Amino acid sequence: LALEILSNIRVVLIHTTHPGNIGAAARAMKTMGLLQLRLVTPKYFPHDEATARAAGATVILGNAQVYATFADAVADCGLVLGVSARSRTIAWPQWDARGAGRHIISAAQNAQVALVFGSERVGLSNEDIDHCHGLVQIPANPEYASLNLAAAVQVLAYEIRMAALEVAGVETTAPPEHVPADAQDIERFYEHLRQTLVDVEFLDPENPRQLMRRVRRLFNRALPDTMELNILRGMLAAVDAKNAKSR
Amino acid sequence: LALEILSNIRVVLIHTTHPGNIGAAARAMKTMGLLQLRLVTPKYFPHDEATARAAGATVILGNAQVYATFADAVADCGLVLGVSARSRTIAWPQWDARGAGRHIISAAQNAQVALVFGSERVGLSNEDIDHCHGLVQIPANPEYASLNLAAAVQVLAYEIRMAALEVAGVETTAPPEHVPADAQDIERFYEHLRQTLVDVEFLDPENPRQLMRRVRRLFNRALPDTMELNILRGMLAAVDAKNAKSR
Repeated sequence: LALEILSNIRVVLIHTTHPGNIGAAARAMKTMGLLQLRLVTPKYFPHDEATARAAGATVILGNAQVYATFADAVADCGLVLGVSARSRTIAWPQWDARGAGRHIISAAQNAQVALVFGSERVGLSNEDIDHCHGLVQIPANPEYASLNLAAAVQVLAYEIRMAALEVAGVETTAPPEHVPADAQDIERFYEHLRQTLVDVEFLDPENPRQLMRRVRRLFNRALPDTMELNILRGMLAAVDAKNAKSR
Repeated sequence: LALEILSNIRVVLIHTTHPGNIGAAARAMKTMGLLQLRLVTPKYFPHDEATARAAGATVILGNAQVYATFADAVADCGLVLGVSARSRTIAWPQWDARGAGRHIISAAQNAQVALVFGSERVGLSNEDIDHCHGLVQIPANPEYASLNLAAAVQVLAYEIRMAALEVAGVETTAPPEHVPADAQDIERFYEHLRQTLVDVEFLDPENPRQLMRRVRRLFNRALPDTMELNILRGMLAAVDAKNAKSR
Protein backbone atom coordinates (compact mmCIF):
# COMPACT_ATOMS: atom_id res chain seq x y z
CA LEU A 1 0.00 0.00 0.00
CA ALA A 2 1.64 3.21 -1.22
CA LEU A 3 0.79 5.39 1.75
CA GLU A 4 4.32 6.53 2.63
CA ILE A 5 3.09 10.00 1.80
CA LEU A 6 1.39 10.02 5.21
CA SER A 7 4.86 10.27 6.77
CA ASN A 8 5.10 13.83 5.41
CA ILE A 9 2.25 14.97 7.62
CA ARG A 10 2.61 16.19 11.21
CA VAL A 11 -0.16 16.80 13.70
CA VAL A 12 0.61 19.81 15.91
CA LEU A 13 -1.27 20.35 19.18
CA ILE A 14 -0.99 23.80 20.76
CA HIS A 15 -1.29 24.41 24.54
CA THR A 16 -3.24 21.20 25.16
CA THR A 17 -4.73 21.28 28.67
CA HIS A 18 -5.83 17.67 29.26
CA PRO A 19 -3.11 15.05 28.85
CA GLY A 20 -5.79 12.43 28.13
CA ASN A 21 -6.59 14.31 24.94
CA ILE A 22 -2.96 14.07 23.81
CA GLY A 23 -3.10 10.30 24.24
CA ALA A 24 -6.46 9.99 22.52
CA ALA A 25 -5.18 12.15 19.65
CA ALA A 26 -2.16 9.84 19.28
CA ARG A 27 -4.49 6.83 19.11
CA ALA A 28 -6.68 8.57 16.52
CA MET A 29 -3.59 9.38 14.44
CA LYS A 30 -2.23 5.85 14.48
CA THR A 31 -5.54 4.30 13.43
CA MET A 32 -5.24 6.39 10.26
CA GLY A 33 -1.51 5.92 9.72
CA LEU A 34 -0.30 9.36 10.88
CA LEU A 35 2.68 8.91 13.16
CA GLN A 36 4.30 12.31 13.75
CA LEU A 37 3.01 14.31 16.70
CA ARG A 38 4.36 17.71 17.74
CA LEU A 39 3.32 19.45 20.94
CA VAL A 40 3.64 23.16 21.63
CA THR A 41 3.77 23.93 25.37
CA PRO A 42 1.42 21.16 26.53
CA LYS A 43 0.22 21.73 30.11
CA TYR A 44 1.24 18.18 31.16
CA PHE A 45 3.45 15.89 29.12
CA PRO A 46 4.42 13.14 29.47
CA HIS A 47 1.57 12.02 31.70
CA ASP A 48 -0.01 8.72 32.79
CA GLU A 49 -3.38 9.73 31.41
CA ALA A 50 -1.89 10.43 27.99
CA THR A 51 -0.27 6.99 28.01
CA ALA A 52 -3.50 5.28 29.10
CA ARG A 53 -5.66 6.93 26.46
CA ALA A 54 -3.09 6.28 23.72
CA ALA A 55 -3.80 2.53 24.08
CA GLY A 56 -1.79 0.87 21.29
CA ALA A 57 -0.32 4.15 20.07
CA THR A 58 2.14 4.93 22.87
CA VAL A 59 5.00 4.83 20.35
CA ILE A 60 3.63 8.09 18.93
CA LEU A 61 3.84 9.69 22.37
CA GLY A 62 7.37 8.37 22.77
CA ASN A 63 8.41 9.99 19.50
CA ALA A 64 6.44 13.21 20.02
CA GLN A 65 8.51 16.38 19.96
CA VAL A 66 7.82 19.30 22.28
CA TYR A 67 8.32 22.90 21.14
CA ALA A 68 8.30 26.26 22.87
CA THR A 69 6.57 28.12 20.05
CA PHE A 70 4.20 27.48 17.16
CA ALA A 71 6.77 28.90 14.73
CA ASP A 72 9.39 26.37 15.87
CA ALA A 73 6.95 23.48 15.56
CA VAL A 74 6.15 24.24 11.91
CA ALA A 75 9.52 25.66 10.84
CA ASP A 76 10.21 22.81 8.37
CA CYS A 77 6.69 22.67 6.92
CA GLY A 78 5.73 23.98 3.49
CA LEU A 79 2.01 23.96 4.21
CA VAL A 80 0.49 24.80 7.58
CA LEU A 81 -3.27 24.41 8.04
CA GLY A 82 -5.06 25.35 11.24
CA VAL A 83 -8.23 23.62 12.39
CA SER A 84 -10.79 26.17 13.48
CA ALA A 85 -14.36 25.78 14.67
CA ARG A 86 -15.14 29.48 14.44
CA SER A 87 -15.47 31.53 11.33
CA ARG A 88 -12.93 34.31 11.25
CA THR A 89 -13.51 37.89 10.23
CA ILE A 90 -10.52 38.08 7.95
CA ALA A 91 -10.96 36.00 4.81
CA TRP A 92 -8.40 33.22 5.09
CA PRO A 93 -8.24 30.41 2.55
CA GLN A 94 -10.56 27.78 3.92
CA TRP A 95 -11.30 24.08 3.38
CA ASP A 96 -13.86 21.71 4.77
CA ALA A 97 -12.47 18.48 6.24
CA ARG A 98 -12.81 16.54 2.99
CA GLY A 99 -11.25 19.28 0.87
CA ALA A 100 -8.48 19.67 3.43
CA GLY A 101 -7.66 15.97 3.25
CA ARG A 102 -7.23 16.19 -0.51
CA HIS A 103 -5.29 19.44 -0.34
CA ILE A 104 -2.94 18.05 2.31
CA ILE A 105 -2.27 14.86 0.36
CA SER A 106 -1.61 16.89 -2.77
CA ALA A 107 0.79 19.23 -0.98
CA ALA A 108 2.49 16.36 0.86
CA GLN A 109 3.81 15.09 -2.48
CA ASN A 110 6.34 17.94 -2.38
CA ALA A 111 6.48 19.30 1.13
CA GLN A 112 6.10 18.59 4.82
CA VAL A 113 2.61 19.50 5.99
CA ALA A 114 1.44 20.54 9.46
CA LEU A 115 -2.15 20.23 10.63
CA VAL A 116 -2.52 22.37 13.73
CA PHE A 117 -5.08 22.13 16.55
CA GLY A 118 -5.52 24.82 19.23
CA SER A 119 -6.26 24.29 22.90
CA GLU A 120 -9.49 22.73 24.17
CA ARG A 121 -10.87 25.98 25.51
CA VAL A 122 -9.92 28.69 23.06
CA GLY A 123 -8.76 26.94 19.90
CA LEU A 124 -6.25 28.84 17.78
CA SER A 125 -5.45 32.46 18.60
CA ASN A 126 -5.27 35.09 15.89
CA GLU A 127 -1.48 35.08 16.33
CA ASP A 128 -1.48 31.31 15.74
CA ILE A 129 -3.52 31.79 12.59
CA ASP A 130 -0.99 34.29 11.25
CA HIS A 131 1.34 31.28 10.94
CA CYS A 132 -1.22 29.27 8.96
CA HIS A 133 -1.62 29.19 5.20
CA GLY A 134 -5.26 28.33 5.56
CA LEU A 135 -7.98 27.11 7.87
CA VAL A 136 -9.91 23.87 8.05
CA GLN A 137 -13.44 23.50 9.35
CA ILE A 138 -15.28 20.29 10.12
CA PRO A 139 -18.90 20.71 9.01
CA ALA A 140 -20.72 20.36 12.32
CA ASN A 141 -24.07 20.97 13.94
CA PRO A 142 -24.34 24.76 14.22
CA GLU A 143 -26.24 24.27 17.49
CA TYR A 144 -23.33 22.37 19.04
CA ALA A 145 -20.14 22.34 17.01
CA SER A 146 -17.76 21.53 19.85
CA LEU A 147 -15.92 18.38 18.86
CA ASN A 148 -13.58 16.95 21.46
CA LEU A 149 -9.95 17.60 20.47
CA ALA A 150 -9.15 13.94 19.78
CA ALA A 151 -12.45 13.55 17.90
CA ALA A 152 -11.45 16.41 15.59
CA VAL A 153 -8.05 14.79 15.08
CA GLN A 154 -9.86 11.52 14.26
CA VAL A 155 -12.10 13.06 11.62
CA LEU A 156 -9.27 14.92 9.89
CA ALA A 157 -6.84 12.00 10.09
CA TYR A 158 -9.61 9.87 8.55
CA GLU A 159 -10.14 12.34 5.70
CA ILE A 160 -6.39 12.49 5.09
CA ARG A 161 -6.24 8.70 4.89
CA MET A 162 -9.27 8.60 2.59
CA ALA A 163 -7.61 11.14 0.29
CA ALA A 164 -4.38 9.12 0.27
CA LEU A 165 -6.35 5.97 -0.57
CA GLU A 166 -8.12 7.86 -3.37
CA VAL A 167 -4.80 8.95 -4.86
CA ALA A 168 -3.41 5.43 -4.48
CA GLY A 169 -6.52 4.12 -6.24
CA VAL A 170 -7.39 1.82 -3.35
CA GLU A 171 -10.99 0.66 -3.18
CA THR A 172 -12.10 0.96 0.46
CA THR A 173 -15.31 -0.98 0.14
CA ALA A 174 -14.25 -4.58 -0.29
CA PRO A 175 -16.24 -5.92 -3.21
CA PRO A 176 -18.60 -8.36 -1.51
CA GLU A 177 -17.54 -11.92 -2.09
CA HIS A 178 -20.97 -12.52 -3.44
CA VAL A 179 -21.49 -13.76 -6.98
CA PRO A 180 -25.14 -13.61 -7.97
CA ALA A 181 -26.44 -16.74 -9.66
CA ASP A 182 -27.09 -16.70 -13.41
CA ALA A 183 -30.44 -15.41 -14.55
CA GLN A 184 -31.39 -18.79 -16.01
CA ASP A 185 -30.89 -20.49 -12.65
CA ILE A 186 -33.00 -17.82 -10.97
CA GLU A 187 -35.70 -18.37 -13.59
CA ARG A 188 -35.70 -22.11 -12.85
CA PHE A 189 -36.14 -21.28 -9.17
CA TYR A 190 -39.07 -18.96 -9.95
CA GLU A 191 -40.69 -21.66 -12.06
CA HIS A 192 -40.13 -24.24 -9.32
CA LEU A 193 -41.53 -21.88 -6.69
CA ARG A 194 -44.55 -21.09 -8.85
CA GLN A 195 -45.29 -24.77 -9.35
CA THR A 196 -44.92 -25.55 -5.65
CA LEU A 197 -47.19 -22.65 -4.72
CA VAL A 198 -49.79 -23.99 -7.14
CA ASP A 199 -49.42 -27.46 -5.65
CA VAL A 200 -49.93 -26.23 -2.10
CA GLU A 201 -52.87 -24.18 -3.38
CA PHE A 202 -51.40 -20.85 -2.36
CA LEU A 203 -51.34 -19.64 -5.94
CA ASP A 204 -54.41 -19.99 -8.10
CA PRO A 205 -53.18 -20.38 -11.71
CA GLU A 206 -56.55 -19.04 -12.94
CA ASN A 207 -56.10 -15.89 -10.87
CA PRO A 208 -52.41 -15.40 -10.15
CA ARG A 209 -52.71 -11.64 -9.56
CA GLN A 210 -49.36 -9.98 -8.86
CA LEU A 211 -47.93 -12.70 -6.67
CA MET A 212 -45.00 -13.88 -8.80
CA ARG A 213 -44.16 -10.32 -9.73
CA ARG A 214 -43.85 -9.43 -6.07
CA VAL A 215 -41.77 -12.51 -5.41
CA ARG A 216 -39.44 -11.58 -8.28
CA ARG A 217 -39.07 -8.07 -6.98
CA LEU A 218 -38.09 -9.41 -3.56
CA PHE A 219 -35.52 -11.92 -4.80
CA ASN A 220 -34.13 -9.61 -7.42
CA ARG A 221 -33.29 -7.16 -4.66
CA ALA A 222 -31.48 -9.91 -2.78
CA LEU A 223 -29.62 -11.32 -5.82
CA PRO A 224 -29.23 -14.88 -4.51
CA ASP A 225 -25.99 -16.68 -5.22
CA THR A 226 -25.82 -20.30 -6.34
CA MET A 227 -25.55 -21.71 -2.84
CA GLU A 228 -28.56 -19.72 -1.70
CA LEU A 229 -30.54 -20.85 -4.74
CA ASN A 230 -29.68 -24.43 -3.88
CA ILE A 231 -30.96 -23.87 -0.34
CA LEU A 232 -34.18 -22.36 -1.67
CA ARG A 233 -34.73 -25.12 -4.17
CA GLY A 234 -33.96 -27.66 -1.43
CA MET A 235 -36.74 -26.11 0.64
CA LEU A 236 -39.13 -26.35 -2.29
CA ALA A 237 -38.15 -29.96 -2.96
CA ALA A 238 -38.87 -30.81 0.67
CA VAL A 239 -42.28 -29.17 0.42
CA ASP A 240 -42.93 -31.04 -2.83
CA ALA A 241 -41.97 -34.38 -1.26
CA LYS A 242 -44.16 -33.78 1.80
CA ASN A 243 -47.00 -32.75 -0.46
CA ALA A 244 -46.63 -35.81 -2.70
CA LYS A 245 -46.89 -38.09 0.35
CA SER A 246 -49.99 -36.40 1.69
CA ARG A 247 -51.83 -36.79 -1.56
CA LEU B 1 -31.24 23.57 6.82
CA ALA B 2 -33.31 20.52 5.83
CA LEU B 3 -31.57 17.96 8.01
CA GLU B 4 -34.66 16.64 9.85
CA ILE B 5 -33.82 13.33 8.22
CA LEU B 6 -31.12 12.91 10.86
CA SER B 7 -33.89 12.39 13.42
CA ASN B 8 -34.64 9.02 11.77
CA ILE B 9 -31.25 7.68 12.77
CA ARG B 10 -30.45 6.00 16.08
CA VAL B 11 -27.03 5.13 17.45
CA VAL B 12 -27.11 1.85 19.38
CA LEU B 13 -24.28 0.92 21.76
CA ILE B 14 -24.09 -2.69 22.90
CA HIS B 15 -22.60 -3.78 26.26
CA THR B 16 -20.49 -0.64 26.62
CA THR B 17 -17.95 -1.14 29.40
CA HIS B 18 -16.63 2.38 30.05
CA PRO B 19 -19.28 4.97 30.90
CA GLY B 20 -16.92 7.72 29.69
CA ASN B 21 -17.24 6.29 26.21
CA ILE B 22 -21.02 6.60 26.35
CA GLY B 23 -20.68 10.28 27.20
CA ALA B 24 -18.05 10.88 24.53
CA ALA B 25 -20.25 9.09 21.98
CA ALA B 26 -23.17 11.35 22.91
CA ARG B 27 -20.96 14.41 22.37
CA ALA B 28 -19.76 13.06 19.01
CA MET B 29 -23.38 12.46 17.97
CA LYS B 30 -24.57 15.93 18.90
CA THR B 31 -21.77 17.67 17.04
CA MET B 32 -23.12 16.00 13.90
CA GLY B 33 -26.81 16.47 14.67
CA LEU B 34 -27.65 12.88 15.69
CA LEU B 35 -29.72 12.97 18.87
CA GLN B 36 -31.13 9.49 19.52
CA LEU B 37 -29.00 7.15 21.60
CA ARG B 38 -30.00 3.62 22.59
CA LEU B 39 -28.03 1.51 25.03
CA VAL B 40 -28.19 -2.27 25.31
CA THR B 41 -27.10 -3.55 28.75
CA PRO B 42 -24.45 -0.88 29.42
CA LYS B 43 -22.16 -1.86 32.30
CA TYR B 44 -22.69 1.50 34.06
CA PHE B 45 -25.41 3.97 33.17
CA PRO B 46 -26.14 6.62 34.17
CA HIS B 47 -22.70 7.51 35.48
CA ASP B 48 -20.79 10.68 36.41
CA GLU B 49 -18.06 9.92 33.89
CA ALA B 50 -20.60 9.65 31.08
CA THR B 51 -22.05 13.02 32.06
CA ALA B 52 -18.62 14.64 32.27
CA ARG B 53 -17.47 13.38 28.87
CA ALA B 54 -20.76 14.34 27.21
CA ALA B 55 -19.90 18.03 27.81
CA GLY B 56 -22.68 20.00 26.07
CA ALA B 57 -24.53 16.86 24.98
CA THR B 58 -25.96 15.68 28.31
CA VAL B 59 -29.48 16.04 26.89
CA ILE B 60 -28.72 13.01 24.70
CA LEU B 61 -27.83 10.97 27.77
CA GLY B 62 -31.01 12.15 29.49
CA ASN B 63 -33.10 10.95 26.53
CA ALA B 64 -31.13 7.72 25.98
CA GLN B 65 -33.18 4.56 26.19
CA VAL B 66 -31.82 1.39 27.76
CA TYR B 67 -32.75 -2.06 26.40
CA ALA B 68 -32.25 -5.62 27.59
CA THR B 69 -31.57 -7.07 24.14
CA PHE B 70 -30.27 -6.00 20.75
CA ALA B 71 -33.53 -7.14 19.12
CA ASP B 72 -35.57 -4.85 21.38
CA ALA B 73 -33.31 -1.89 20.65
CA VAL B 74 -33.74 -2.16 16.88
CA ALA B 75 -37.31 -3.50 16.80
CA ASP B 76 -38.71 -0.38 15.08
CA CYS B 77 -35.86 0.05 12.58
CA GLY B 78 -36.10 -0.79 8.88
CA LEU B 79 -32.34 -0.78 8.36
CA VAL B 80 -29.81 -2.02 10.90
CA LEU B 81 -26.12 -1.63 10.16
CA GLY B 82 -23.39 -2.93 12.44
CA VAL B 83 -19.97 -1.30 12.72
CA SER B 84 -17.27 -3.89 12.58
CA ALA B 85 -13.49 -3.59 12.58
CA ARG B 86 -12.90 -7.21 11.62
CA SER B 87 -13.67 -8.83 8.34
CA ARG B 88 -16.15 -11.65 8.73
CA THR B 89 -16.00 -15.04 7.12
CA ILE B 90 -19.58 -14.97 5.92
CA ALA B 91 -20.14 -12.49 3.11
CA TRP B 92 -22.41 -9.85 4.59
CA PRO B 93 -23.34 -6.75 2.63
CA GLN B 94 -20.63 -4.27 3.48
CA TRP B 95 -20.03 -0.53 3.21
CA ASP B 96 -17.10 1.68 4.00
CA ALA B 97 -17.86 4.67 6.24
CA ARG B 98 -18.56 7.01 3.33
CA GLY B 99 -20.78 4.55 1.49
CA ALA B 100 -22.57 3.77 4.74
CA GLY B 101 -23.33 7.46 5.32
CA ARG B 102 -24.97 7.71 1.91
CA HIS B 103 -26.82 4.41 2.27
CA ILE B 104 -28.15 5.41 5.70
CA ILE B 105 -29.36 8.82 4.51
CA SER B 106 -31.03 7.19 1.53
CA ALA B 107 -32.77 4.58 3.71
CA ALA B 108 -33.71 7.17 6.35
CA GLN B 109 -36.02 8.83 3.83
CA ASN B 110 -38.45 5.95 4.36
CA ALA B 111 -37.45 4.14 7.54
CA GLN B 112 -35.88 4.37 10.95
CA VAL B 113 -32.22 3.39 10.78
CA ALA B 114 -30.01 1.94 13.52
CA LEU B 115 -26.23 2.17 13.48
CA VAL B 116 -24.91 -0.34 16.00
CA PHE B 117 -21.57 -0.42 17.83
CA GLY B 118 -20.35 -3.41 19.85
CA SER B 119 -18.44 -3.35 23.11
CA GLU B 120 -14.94 -1.91 23.45
CA ARG B 121 -13.24 -5.27 23.84
CA VAL B 122 -15.01 -7.66 21.52
CA GLY B 123 -17.11 -5.55 19.16
CA LEU B 124 -20.22 -7.21 17.75
CA SER B 125 -20.78 -10.92 18.32
CA ASN B 126 -21.89 -13.18 15.49
CA GLU B 127 -25.34 -13.31 17.15
CA ASP B 128 -25.44 -9.49 17.08
CA ILE B 129 -24.55 -9.52 13.40
CA ASP B 130 -27.44 -11.87 12.64
CA HIS B 131 -29.67 -8.90 13.49
CA CYS B 132 -27.85 -6.59 11.07
CA HIS B 133 -28.70 -6.04 7.43
CA GLY B 134 -25.13 -5.14 6.69
CA LEU B 135 -21.77 -4.18 8.11
CA VAL B 136 -19.80 -0.95 8.07
CA GLN B 137 -16.04 -0.67 8.18
CA ILE B 138 -13.99 2.46 8.72
CA PRO B 139 -10.93 2.26 6.45
CA ALA B 140 -8.13 2.22 9.00
CA ASN B 141 -4.44 1.48 9.35
CA PRO B 142 -4.18 -2.31 9.05
CA GLU B 143 -1.30 -2.19 11.56
CA TYR B 144 -3.52 -0.58 14.19
CA ALA B 145 -7.18 -0.35 13.33
CA SER B 146 -8.49 0.02 16.88
CA LEU B 147 -10.50 3.24 16.95
CA ASN B 148 -11.82 4.28 20.32
CA LEU B 149 -15.60 3.67 20.49
CA ALA B 150 -16.49 7.36 20.57
CA ALA B 151 -13.98 8.07 17.79
CA ALA B 152 -15.74 5.51 15.59
CA VAL B 153 -19.08 7.12 16.42
CA GLN B 154 -17.57 10.50 15.49
CA VAL B 155 -16.33 9.35 12.08
CA LEU B 156 -19.62 7.68 11.14
CA ALA B 157 -21.79 10.50 12.49
CA TYR B 158 -19.62 12.85 10.43
CA GLU B 159 -20.10 10.78 7.26
CA ILE B 160 -23.85 10.63 7.88
CA ARG B 161 -23.98 14.42 8.25
CA MET B 162 -21.85 14.88 5.11
CA ALA B 163 -24.23 12.61 3.17
CA ALA B 164 -27.24 14.56 4.46
CA LEU B 165 -25.59 17.83 3.43
CA GLU B 166 -24.86 16.35 -0.01
CA VAL B 167 -28.51 15.38 -0.47
CA ALA B 168 -29.62 18.79 0.79
CA GLY B 169 -27.22 20.39 -1.70
CA VAL B 170 -25.41 22.31 1.01
CA GLU B 171 -21.92 23.52 0.17
CA THR B 172 -19.71 22.78 3.18
CA THR B 173 -16.73 24.82 2.11
CA ALA B 174 -17.77 28.42 2.57
CA PRO B 175 -16.81 30.24 -0.61
CA PRO B 176 -13.98 32.47 0.58
CA GLU B 177 -15.13 36.04 0.95
CA HIS B 178 -12.31 36.97 -1.33
CA VAL B 179 -13.01 38.67 -4.62
CA PRO B 180 -9.90 38.79 -6.79
CA ALA B 181 -9.22 42.16 -8.38
CA ASP B 182 -9.88 42.63 -12.10
CA ALA B 183 -7.12 41.61 -14.46
CA GLN B 184 -6.69 45.19 -15.70
CA ASP B 185 -6.01 46.42 -12.17
CA ILE B 186 -3.48 43.66 -11.67
CA GLU B 187 -1.83 44.62 -14.97
CA ARG B 188 -1.55 48.23 -13.77
CA PHE B 189 0.12 46.97 -10.64
CA TYR B 190 2.60 44.87 -12.64
CA GLU B 191 3.42 47.88 -14.79
CA HIS B 192 3.83 50.06 -11.72
CA LEU B 193 6.04 47.44 -10.05
CA ARG B 194 8.14 47.04 -13.20
CA GLN B 195 8.69 50.80 -13.43
CA THR B 196 9.61 51.08 -9.75
CA LEU B 197 12.03 48.17 -10.03
CA VAL B 198 13.66 49.90 -12.99
CA ASP B 199 13.83 53.16 -11.03
CA VAL B 200 15.52 51.50 -8.06
CA GLU B 201 17.85 49.76 -10.52
CA PHE B 202 16.79 46.27 -9.51
CA LEU B 203 15.49 45.51 -12.98
CA ASP B 204 17.64 46.25 -15.99
CA PRO B 205 15.24 47.03 -18.86
CA GLU B 206 17.98 46.01 -21.31
CA ASN B 207 18.24 42.61 -19.66
CA PRO B 208 15.01 41.88 -17.81
CA ARG B 209 15.47 38.10 -17.88
CA GLN B 210 12.56 36.19 -16.29
CA LEU B 211 11.99 38.57 -13.41
CA MET B 212 8.53 39.89 -14.23
CA ARG B 213 7.35 36.46 -15.30
CA ARG B 214 8.34 35.08 -11.90
CA VAL B 215 6.63 37.99 -10.18
CA ARG B 216 3.46 37.34 -12.16
CA ARG B 217 3.49 33.69 -11.30
CA LEU B 218 3.75 34.53 -7.62
CA PHE B 219 0.94 37.09 -7.58
CA ASN B 220 -1.30 35.06 -9.84
CA ARG B 221 -1.17 32.28 -7.33
CA ALA B 222 -2.22 34.67 -4.57
CA LEU B 223 -4.97 36.40 -6.61
CA PRO B 224 -4.83 39.77 -4.77
CA ASP B 225 -8.13 41.50 -4.09
CA THR B 226 -8.64 45.22 -4.59
CA MET B 227 -7.68 46.17 -1.06
CA GLU B 228 -4.49 44.15 -1.27
CA LEU B 229 -3.64 45.74 -4.63
CA ASN B 230 -4.13 49.16 -3.06
CA ILE B 231 -1.72 48.20 -0.28
CA LEU B 232 0.84 46.97 -2.82
CA ARG B 233 0.52 50.09 -4.95
CA GLY B 234 0.76 52.22 -1.82
CA MET B 235 4.07 50.54 -1.04
CA LEU B 236 5.31 51.24 -4.56
CA ALA B 237 4.19 54.86 -4.38
CA ALA B 238 6.11 55.27 -1.11
CA VAL B 239 9.21 53.81 -2.72
CA ASP B 240 8.73 56.08 -5.73
CA ALA B 241 8.39 59.17 -3.50
CA LYS B 242 11.50 58.31 -1.50
CA ASN B 243 13.37 57.66 -4.71
CA ALA B 244 12.27 60.97 -6.26
CA LYS B 245 13.59 62.90 -3.23
CA SER B 246 16.96 61.17 -3.26
CA ARG B 247 17.60 62.03 -6.89
